[in-house]
Amino acid sequence: MEYHFTNRMSNVKASAIREILKATADPDMISFAGGNPAAEAFPVKEIEKISAEILHNDPISVLQYGITEGDQGLIDASIKFFNRNELAFKDGDKMLITSGSQQIMEFAAKCLCNEGDVVICENPSFLGALNAFKSLGALLRGVEYKEGQLDLEALENALQTKPKPRFMYLIPNYQNPTGMTMSLEVRKKILELAKKYEVLILEDNPYGDLRFEGEAIPSIKSLDQDGLVIYAASLSKIIAPGMRIACCMGPQEIINKFTVAKQASDVHSNLWAQKVMARYLTEYDMDQHIQSIQKIYQAKCELMLQEIKKYFHPAVEYTIPTGGMFIWVTLPKHINMQDFVKKALAQRVAVVPGNAFLDDDQKECHSFRMNFSTPTNEKIKTGVQILGQLMYEMY
Amino acid sequence: MEYHFTNRMSNVKASAIREILKATADPDMISFAGGNPAAEAFPVKEIEKISAEILHNDPISVLQYGITEGDQGLIDASIKFFNRNELAFKDGDKMLITSGSQQIMEFAAKCLCNEGDVVICENPSFLGALNAFKSLGALLRGVEYKEGQLDLEALENALQTKPKPRFMYLIPNYQNPTGMTMSLEVRKKILELAKKYEVLILEDNPYGDLRFEGEAIPSIKSLDQDGLVIYAASLSKIIAPGMRIACCMGPQEIINKFTVAKQASDVHSNLWAQKVMARYLTEYDMDQHIQSIQKIYQAKCELMLQEIKKYFHPAVEYTIPTGGMFIWVTLPKHINMQDFVKKALAQRVAVVPGNAFLDDDQKECHSFRMNFSTPTNEKIKTGVQILGQLMYEMY
Repeated sequence: MEYHFTNRMSNVKASAIREILKATADPDMISFAGGNPAAEAFPVKEIEKISAEILHNDPISVLQYGITEGDQGLIDASIKFFNRNELAFKDGDKMLITSGSQQIMEFAAKCLCNEGDVVICENPSFLGALNAFKSLGALLRGVEYKEGQLDLEALENALQTKPKPRFMYLIPNYQNPTGMTMSLEVRKKILELAKKYEVLILEDNPYGDLRFEGEAIPSIKSLDQDGLVIYAASLSKIIAPGMRIACCMGPQEIINKFTVAKQASDVHSNLWAQKVMARYLTEYDMDQHIQSIQKIYQAKCELMLQEIKKYFHPAVEYTIPTGGMFIWVTLPKHINMQDFVKKALAQRVAVVPGNAFLDDDQKECHSFRMNFSTPTNEKIKTGVQILGQLMYEMY
Repeated sequence: MEYHFTNRMSNVKASAIREILKATADPDMISFAGGNPAAEAFPVKEIEKISAEILHNDPISVLQYGITEGDQGLIDASIKFFNRNELAFKDGDKMLITSGSQQIMEFAAKCLCNEGDVVICENPSFLGALNAFKSLGALLRGVEYKEGQLDLEALENALQTKPKPRFMYLIPNYQNPTGMTMSLEVRKKILELAKKYEVLILEDNPYGDLRFEGEAIPSIKSLDQDGLVIYAASLSKIIAPGMRIACCMGPQEIINKFTVAKQASDVHSNLWAQKVMARYLTEYDMDQHIQSIQKIYQAKCELMLQEIKKYFHPAVEYTIPTGGMFIWVTLPKHINMQDFVKKALAQRVAVVPGNAFLDDDQKECHSFRMNFSTPTNEKIKTGVQILGQLMYEMY
């Protein structure tokens, strides 16, 4: 039997990151390729305690079918939590609990993009989201960075294309893969452009609370008064990703459509995870928990930057993140990035080739992504030194 | 801001069942409308114990990201379990753990049906699956029943349409919504037709183990030697649906494509649920557990049939299931089914109008679906009596 697959799926490859991750299953490998949160930041004891109480006192509530919208306790707790510092969830908004924020990306494309419709994204951007858009037949149009901020002129050009792009996918805080953060000014201008061209924004903010320097900058969602922004808020990085829970907030009409998509997709998200998270958000001191996470990430990022400064060739450029999990490293043009990544892997250090994050992964790219949240301090030191030596060898 | 949604989503309505379910949130309502497994059949104590051990001894394994394919322990345990009575998982097959079998329906349409492609389904069939297919732009072509079995002539006619349908969606055991079961002979003929016309079969078997009468009939998957069948095996009905775990098995090439779809959809399924189920399947006596479930379902089904016999108008027809969760009731043609359902709801008894399960829900339909697994015995008695009185009033 010969199998035939759809046009929409033919453009989606198995994620380069996940394939590299499999290669890094070997515990001796030094992996800067992943995007795993630091496991030492998971509230293990608290989850154990809450879970035991729920399964003892009210097991049927997590074992029976639930409603698609999500557990009301988690919705209430999440709205309170994500509104604690800014008004992200507004009157007229609705929240949908999803199976990770990956699912929000899929619903956005499924509900908003007919096949062949265009999604504007940062170039580079989060591979998982780009694949979700492509898997529904959307076309990507990447907008480059210029002097450390999104090129607004290029963005306006992209917005003027016909037919009108369906939405802009943006990660304003500690972007994946670059680690860069949009200034307040740029956020305001992007929102103005969204209003002018009537193009929605899908704002993805998984890393917002992983801030270890500077002041928090308001989300685009909190600045929006016109129902232009769909906001993806994840609990993976501040509680635990294996539980696969995120929250999507936005205008009621859009969230209602996403809810219908979710019914057809997985009926509802795992209820144990929803109930445990609802109680964790409600009963524990989240500010203290987040501060402790921030300290872990700050120490790891500082260590990696310090080693990079020590060992990387001075012609190599890299971003200096103020939060998140990633550093974006750019090699001088005469070093072939793919060769570099392969040679590093042969020396048992894994990084992700930068072209994986582009709107078109066949484009030339001299950068790669390094993750500092997962590896131990020792592996950060050894791995950066190996990469540094390789740079000098290939220079 | 005016929002525009996709063509593919415009044909999917919020599930009629879930909307009725919301109306039945009132605990005084007698609901035969749901499709919930009997909560008394959940292995509550065992799940509590296993969960406590996992969260105490190896919490990071359920809190950190996992791989898309699924937990290897659950894959191994599921293959062993679903192969215990027949060879459903064969050499050359692969398994993917999914977030409920709803997700398998979505991946089938996403990977196999371009927009406008045709999926053949039984008429009536499971609403959730039909919505998943429609939500990816597939068109439905229903094949009717004839004398208690699928009309094979009509099926062959459907298979001959151009362009070639992409797959047949079938629920051979204790079908939702009719409660009917395909004979071995019909299964073999359908497989022959699949081979002749080179059209895949998506075999959905959520209820197979809920058998309380007769011998188990081999799955179409177990009869297939040509890689024609994708098999959806759920753990929702034999362990617990709120955990949202199912297993998809089929030819490697297809499962690999589904895995790429899953990466873009929700990365992986909740790991706590996967690890708990792996250990439950491995460490407990599943045969004994399933026998105890079968007894619960048998008693409930027998009670409902007995009350139906007592109170329903003799002109009313109904199926006599040998397993599963549903009875399909057909009113005489002069009683308007929609009116009947509305009047029943006004008297606080909920059933699902049968047209919700058709390839085209605007078609005329005189049937409705009754669920016997969720209501208490007392509610079964009262509810059937109310429906019976209404039938006499409307006759």
